[in-house]
Amino acid sequence: MEIEALLREKKRIIDDALKGYLAEDDTPIFTAMRYSVIDGGKRIRPILCLLTYEASGGRDFDEIIPIACGIEMIHCYSLIHDDLPCMDNDDFRRGKPTSHRVFGEGVATLAGDGLFAFAFELLSRSKSDQKLRVIADLARITGPKGIVAGQEMDIREKKELTPSFLRKTHFRKTALLITGSIRAGAIIARVDDSILTNLTRGGEALGMLFQITDDLLDVREKGSEENRLTYPLLYGIDRSRFRARRYADRARYYFHRAGEVYQVLKEITTFILNRDR
Amino acid sequence: MEIEALLREKKRIIDDALKGYLAEDDTPIFTAMRYSVIDGGKRIRPILCLLTYEASGGRDFDEIIPIACGIEMIHCYSLIHDDLPCMDNDDFRRGKPTSHRVFGEGVATLAGDGLFAFAFELLSRSKSDQKLRVIADLARITGPKGIVAGQEMDIREKKELTPSFLRKTHFRKTALLITGSIRAGAIIARVDDSILTNLTRGGEALGMLFQITDDLLDVREKGSEENRLTYPLLYGIDRSRFRARRYADRARYYFHRAGEVYQVLKEITTFILNRDR
Repeated sequence: MEIEALLREKKRIIDDALKGYLAEDDTPIFTAMRYSVIDGGKRIRPILCLLTYEASGGRDFDEIIPIACGIEMIHCYSLIHDDLPCMDNDDFRRGKPTSHRVFGEGVATLAGDGLFAFAFELLSRSKSDQKLRVIADLARITGPKGIVAGQEMDIREKKELTPSFLRKTHFRKTALLITGSIRAGAIIARVDDSILTNLTRGGEALGMLFQITDDLLDVREKGSEENRLTYPLLYGIDRSRFRARRYADRARYYFHRAGEVYQVLKEITTFILNRDR
Repeated sequence: MEIEALLREKKRIIDDALKGYLAEDDTPIFTAMRYSVIDGGKRIRPILCLLTYEASGGRDFDEIIPIACGIEMIHCYSLIHDDLPCMDNDDFRRGKPTSHRVFGEGVATLAGDGLFAFAFELLSRSKSDQKLRVIADLARITGPKGIVAGQEMDIREKKELTPSFLRKTHFRKTALLITGSIRAGAIIARVDDSILTNLTRGGEALGMLFQITDDLLDVREKGSEENRLTYPLLYGIDRSRFRARRYADRARYYFHRAGEVYQVLKEITTFILNRDR
């Protein structure tokens, strides 16, 4: 399929750049950072960032690659901290032992902290004169009203599992950074505000779609886990699939409104709706 | 004493601003963030930032206060993570229970993450057109070659306690952010590079001085702790005091070279050399 080939091509670019940025040093911290970043993940966030930038007419890798990679490092940092015993207490991630299982909790916590700081260093290395807007955007997204708030809701005692609580948690934990990835590509490419608004709405729906399909895949692989806040737990499989389709429709609608050039984002939306891993 | 009155006055400005920034929200994360930031600490880093800015001719609080407060939040974030059971495992900090003792490890880790992200949000809120340089500087300082590397060295098994290992650890853990605070004030006030270099060298010496006097006060209060990497442990009390004086001389030398207007930094150096808490 054409879209899969495109995703593979962009993934290779991101993977190579990530390797380059993290090759700099051989300390325990860099070793732990590399363990969690290299050879792991689909790179969906940096790919969305890069594709949106290119679709918007951007052509300079020195503007966008540090930002796309910074976003992936933010994502990896949040995974390391989420997996810690004091959070989700996961032993495996992407088929290998989690960071704290390999390096101990102390170094794992610090590897997360290091990736987060390094992400902002990379953002500030971009050649673009628009990078300050992206830095402010991502600081807000990763902050106490964003990802951190979502993660806190996720580990909170689950008496309060309501549709609105679930939606807010997933929106903050997942949809915000996916939206931020698309916004970053658009901002660096200097799109108009009206286009940015449509891309933002589309990104939010795509982010929710991504989380629901993630939940559905988790159920298929591990069975339903009662202590996890997921769509299948609250709605069951069929109604979760229905919700996924509705978010996909919504995402494609807004990407369509953003303009023809964003056809690729509509295709990725369909790809994510139908993904099986 | 005049310098103490000055420090008190600046501390009040910083305290008020920190309260304002953190008043925004009432979630568990903001509650935990406030717990670790409000009513705690001497605010030495934001005060150094503010005083350097003013000594360099800066006059606009909208340029410097968000940056000074962002630096203090970075400091508080690093304290929360350092205190965690997987790091130094401290139960008390500044005379009250540490964050994880009050809120649990999960929320404490997230409160640290939240403060770190919020710090970058504040940095990007400054009105100054020089803030990007400060953001890049602080991302490097807090990153895997800076504070994070220092903290990793601090929790590493202590077979390798040599003078150079101790110096490097303290330099990264403490001196870098104190230097960064002074540099931030100078950069926002647009000082010349030659002045910035002297302030940087002076800040590095002041940062080392600060850590040694901190170690000495710790010994006086808690007695020597064998598992902690400190100057008194390696050098004993008298030779640590000698080293403190030497760093103070060095700091004052460079602040003198930076220019007359930085007299206040020389006075703070003397104050820190003689501090008893």
